[in-house]
Amino acid sequence: MNVVDIIEKKRDGGELTQSEIEYMIYEYINGIIPDYQMSAFLMAVYFKGMTDEEVYNLTKTMISSGDMVDLSLINGFKVDKHSTGGVGDKVTLIIGPILASLGYKFPKLSGRGLGHTGGTIDKIESFKGFDTSLTINDFIKKVNEIGISISGQTKNLVLADKLLYALRDVTGTVPSIPLIASSIMSKKLALGADLIMLDVKVGSGAFMKNIDDARKLSITMVNIGKRFGKNVIAMITSMNSPLGCKIGNSLEAMEAIEFLKGNSSADLKEICYEAVAHALMIHENISKEESVRRIDEVIKSGKALNKFYELIKSQHGDINSLTLAKKHVLKSKEEGYIKNIDAKTMGIISMRLGAGRNKLGDTIDHSVGINLLKKPGDYVKAGEDLVEVYYNLELRDDITNSIYSAYTFANTKYCDKLILDIIK
Amino acid sequence: MNVVDIIEKKRDGGELTQSEIEYMIYEYINGIIPDYQMSAFLMAVYFKGMTDEEVYNLTKTMISSGDMVDLSLINGFKVDKHSTGGVGDKVTLIIGPILASLGYKFPKLSGRGLGHTGGTIDKIESFKGFDTSLTINDFIKKVNEIGISISGQTKNLVLADKLLYALRDVTGTVPSIPLIASSIMSKKLALGADLIMLDVKVGSGAFMKNIDDARKLSITMVNIGKRFGKNVIAMITSMNSPLGCKIGNSLEAMEAIEFLKGNSSADLKEICYEAVAHALMIHENISKEESVRRIDEVIKSGKALNKFYELIKSQHGDINSLTLAKKHVLKSKEEGYIKNIDAKTMGIISMRLGAGRNKLGDTIDHSVGINLLKKPGDYVKAGEDLVEVYYNLELRDDITNSIYSAYTFANTKYCDKLILDIIK
Repeated sequence: MNVVDIIEKKRDGGELTQSEIEYMIYEYINGIIPDYQMSAFLMAVYFKGMTDEEVYNLTKTMISSGDMVDLSLINGFKVDKHSTGGVGDKVTLIIGPILASLGYKFPKLSGRGLGHTGGTIDKIESFKGFDTSLTINDFIKKVNEIGISISGQTKNLVLADKLLYALRDVTGTVPSIPLIASSIMSKKLALGADLIMLDVKVGSGAFMKNIDDARKLSITMVNIGKRFGKNVIAMITSMNSPLGCKIGNSLEAMEAIEFLKGNSSADLKEICYEAVAHALMIHENISKEESVRRIDEVIKSGKALNKFYELIKSQHGDINSLTLAKKHVLKSKEEGYIKNIDAKTMGIISMRLGAGRNKLGDTIDHSVGINLLKKPGDYVKAGEDLVEVYYNLELRDDITNSIYSAYTFANTKYCDKLILDIIK
Repeated sequence: MNVVDIIEKKRDGGELTQSEIEYMIYEYINGIIPDYQMSAFLMAVYFKGMTDEEVYNLTKTMISSGDMVDLSLINGFKVDKHSTGGVGDKVTLIIGPILASLGYKFPKLSGRGLGHTGGTIDKIESFKGFDTSLTINDFIKKVNEIGISISGQTKNLVLADKLLYALRDVTGTVPSIPLIASSIMSKKLALGADLIMLDVKVGSGAFMKNIDDARKLSITMVNIGKRFGKNVIAMITSMNSPLGCKIGNSLEAMEAIEFLKGNSSADLKEICYEAVAHALMIHENISKEESVRRIDEVIKSGKALNKFYELIKSQHGDINSLTLAKKHVLKSKEEGYIKNIDAKTMGIISMRLGAGRNKLGDTIDHSVGINLLKKPGDYVKAGEDLVEVYYNLELRDDITNSIYSAYTFANTKYCDKLILDIIK
C-alpha cells in the first residue's frame, strides 16, 4: 500500500477501503507517514468528504489507536454528553448533577477551551483545588460513589484523534464533517456510555455556520453510533447569541449554581431540560411531561444542587473559592429590542479578557468574563445597564467597542429559535 | 499575517494578495512554515486553483527565491525550450543543434528523468565523458562559442520550486495547473531567454490527460510570459504513443543523430520542424515555408549534425561511445493496422529495463530501451518483427507481456493528430 496512491484516491473522490484507512491511521501514529502527507490527505478529505462506510471505518480505527476505558465497572445507566463548542455553554455543569441526582451515572471526561469557545475542565477548575487529573480507577470509583465525576481526558484515549486534531488545527482542516464526526464519536465510543447526548451548535459562535451542515454532522454521528449499537441523540441548537447570561469560567460556574437553585435564563433552561428529558424518556420510557416534572423536583428539593456540591467536594474543590475580577458596567447606547448578541464576538472578547486560550498552553484567568444583563428579546433603553465586564488588566476602548459591536437591535421583539432539530 | 488564515482563504476560494503569496513562499523557504502547512495549502490550491494574478505573483516570488542567471552576456537571439515530459521525447537534442546551426543561441539548463518520462541530461550523458555540471560562466562561454550548451540546473535556480516540487511529488499535488505553470515558468523566466518554446504533452504518457487541461495550462503559461514581456509559444502535442521510434538514453541519442542525418519518423519531424519554424518566423519575420526551407538546408548540408558533434566535443563527450545492451526482437502476435502504442506503458517498461528512475537517486543504464519497428498507422502481419528490446538483466515474461499489451490494432488505418494546438 502506498500513501501517495491513497491521497490521490481520496483527492479524486474515491471511497477508501477499511485497510487503506487503517494504513493511513496506524502508519501515521507510528511515525511512518509524516505530517505533510497526512495534512494533504486531510485537505483532500475536506474537499471530497467521506461515505458513511469510510467514516465508520475511520472512527473504528481511531478508537483502536488508543486505550479503551472500561465503564462496565460502573453500575447503572451511563450518560455521556458532548457539545461541539459554544460561548457561555455551561450545560454539562448543570445536567451532570441533575442526572446524577436522578440516579443516572454521569462519567464525564472533558477538554479544555480553545479559541473563542470555553471548556468544561477550565470552568470547573474555577473551584480552587478541584482535581481534574484523576486516574481512570479513581474516576470510575467516584462515579460509582456519587454518580458523577468530571475529569480531563486520559493521555492515551484515542491517540490518533489527539495527533490528528493537533494537525488539523494548524492546517485549515478542522471544519470537515467526516473529520469532526469521527473525532467526536471515537472519543465518545472509546468511553462506552449507554447514551451519548450530542449538542451540535450552529451559528456565529459555532464551528457549524449553517443548519444544513449541522444536520449533516448530526446524522453522520448518529449513524456512526448506530453502527456501534449505541443510543445517540443529537440536539441541533442555535449559537448565534451566547447561551445563558454569563461567559467566563467562574461566572459560568456561578450561573450553573444559580440554575440548580432554580434561577435560570429561558434559553439555558430549554436546552438543559430537553437534554435531561431525552435521557429519561429513553431509559425509563416515560413521557416528556413526566421527565420535566422529575427534573423540576430535584431542583426544587435542592437534590441537584447538593449533587453539584458533592461533585466539587469529591474532587477536592473549594465551593467558596469562586472569585471575580474588577467589574465595569457598560450602558446601552441604543434603545430597542435586542435582536442578537453575536456569540463569536463575545467569545473572542472573553478570550482576550483572559478567560480563554489563543493557543494551547496559554494560562487563563478564571475570574474574568462577561455578564449579559439583557438577552435577545429584551427591551433596553439608552443609558440602561447593558452588560458587566469583569477584567484584571486594562479595559481598553477596542474591547468595549467590540462589545457594543456585538449587539444588534430591532424595533420589534424577535426571538431566534433555540432548539432547531433533534436527530436520533 | 497568519499561515492558517492564508490556507483557509485559499481553501474557501479566495484570491490571495501578492504579500500573502510572498509570505507563504519566503517563510516556507526559510523553514518558518513547516511542510505540513505547505502541503495542506498546495492541496487547497489543487482544488481551488489560482487566478492569473495569483499565478503571476507566485511565479514572480518563486523566481526571486533563487539565483537569476544573467544571459545578457550571451550575444544573439536566445531560445529556450521545455517539454512537460513524454516518452521518447528527444526533441531538445534535435532542435538545439538545428537552431544553433541557424545562428540562434540555445542555452539549455535541463533536468533528469523521473518515473516513466525521460530527461535530456540523462540522454546526453549516454556520450561517455559528457559534462553536465558546468559552472554558469562556463555554460555561457560555451553558448557564445558554439551557440549551444546543455547542462544540469544550477543548485540554487528557483530554490522555492525545488522545495515545492519535492513536496508536491509525495503529497498528491503535482497535477495542479497553477502549480505546474508557476514551476515551469519560474525556471524558464529566471533564465531569461528571448523566446520560450513550450511543448505541452497531452495523453496517456503525459501529466495532462486531456486537451482541455493542456490548453488551460498552456494559456496560463503564455499569459505569465506576457506579464513578464517575454515571447512564449506553447505547442500542445499528443503523447498517446511514444514520440519517434526509440525510447531509452543511448537509443534516443542515436535517433537524434539519425534525424540530423535526414532520417526521421514523421511524427518526430513534424514536432521538431514546427518548433524551429516558429522561432524563425518570430525572430526573422519570415514565412513558414521559408523557415522549413532553411531547416532542410542545415540538415542536408550536414551543418546541424556537425553542430551536434561540436556540442558533444565541447562538453568533453565521446561521440563514438554510445553502446546498446543485448537485443531481443518481439514479433507481432496480431495482424492489422497499429492504432496506438500506449506511451505510459512503454515509458514504464523502459524505466523497468533500467533506462529511468523509479525514485530520485536511482542509477540508470544508458544502454537499454525499446526500438519501435512499427509505428501507429503502419500495417503489420502476425509473426512480423514488431519491436526490439535492449536489456542487460533478465527479460522477464511480465515485461514482454506488458509490451504486447501496449499495442492496440485496428482494421483500418487511423492516425492520431499530433500537434493539437498552438497557443501564443
